[in-house]
Amino acid sequence: MAMYEGIVQDLIDEFGRLPGIGPKSAQRITFHILQTQSFDVDRLAELLVAVRERVKFCSQCGNVSEEELCAICRDPRRDPSLICVVEEPKDVLAVERTRQFRGLYHVLGGAISPIDGIGPDDLNIASLMQRLSSSDVSEVILATDPNLEGEATAAYLSRLLKTIEVPVSRLASGLPVGGDLEFADEVTLGRAFEGRQTLN
Amino acid sequence: MAMYEGIVQDLIDEFGRLPGIGPKSAQRITFHILQTQSFDVDRLAELLVAVRERVKFCSQCGNVSEEELCAICRDPRRDPSLICVVEEPKDVLAVERTRQFRGLYHVLGGAISPIDGIGPDDLNIASLMQRLSSSDVSEVILATDPNLEGEATAAYLSRLLKTIEVPVSRLASGLPVGGDLEFADEVTLGRAFEGRQTLN
Repeated sequence: MAMYEGIVQDLIDEFGRLPGIGPKSAQRITFHILQTQSFDVDRLAELLVAVRERVKFCSQCGNVSEEELCAICRDPRRDPSLICVVEEPKDVLAVERTRQFRGLYHVLGGAISPIDGIGPDDLNIASLMQRLSSSDVSEVILATDPNLEGEATAAYLSRLLKTIEVPVSRLASGLPVGGDLEFADEVTLGRAFEGRQTLN
Repeated sequence: MAMYEGIVQDLIDEFGRLPGIGPKSAQRITFHILQTQSFDVDRLAELLVAVRERVKFCSQCGNVSEEELCAICRDPRRDPSLICVVEEPKDVLAVERTRQFRGLYHVLGGAISPIDGIGPDDLNIASLMQRLSSSDVSEVILATDPNLEGEATAAYLSRLLKTIEVPVSRLASGLPVGGDLEFADEVTLGRAFEGRQTLN
């Protein structure tokens, strides 16, 4: 016997299916729940079911939302002529934290990755094109991840958007603020050179 | 706005309350649940509630159990004259994995730790003494953790058990198998010297 009895092991296994939780963590979490009377198990259980039932994706931008339109798309103070294209809902949160962007988003739902069998048709690209053709957009900011898949997706979108003549920009690559130049990898340092800005 | 809407953020917060899950992991887990249709949310929710409702502690040894007696205490092939004393249910699993012990367990529910306000009365020590006085026990093996609290608990139990004249042993401390001598900390290496065994 190297396992717990019945449902205790079942719960450990179920936690172990979540991303970033290995068997040891799953075990620790399960015993925490068993032993901590103050932990509100019912609340976690209810939230799990409620989130799956009630949370949908915004019909305009694809962000998570409890309503037809997400909180950002509903907000009249946001500038609808600026559209920031990101891969995932969590990227929306990352951009929001900068407090630098007051436009709307478009969430692709991933990035082009032939190795994972994800092509343009698997992403919310058709809805982006439709959205751009039916509204006055002054700039599309491509904010996909600065990795292979994100760059490929940005390159693909950039070519596609050329056909409808809307201004397109890409987030700058360069040295992370607060980092040490000597510890930057050569690709990042190369990009920092390419994108260097004239000061005077 | 630096947070998600309503229940999505609530679920992120709730996952963040679990041990070893930081805000970033809680966010990743929540989006995984939202986006992965194959993840069985209802099953996780049901298991959470079922575990808290149905899992009790064994009335004899204090291990987790769905019945009055746990699977180990119920097993007639186990030797009831050997009792291995551990801190937590997860330690039972660790000892079971060695396949070296065929006796029964006694789970203290923690270790003596004055700094956390945990004294002997907060642990399942009275039930251990009662159990030992009412059954024929040939050896009590103290398998508390090899740290300050575990050692203090073992020392306390060892003194207490002297009064009822039952043979008591403690797990050996020493170098971990597969490790490098030069990387062992001095306390472990010191213990390895103290506990050295005559070969011929």
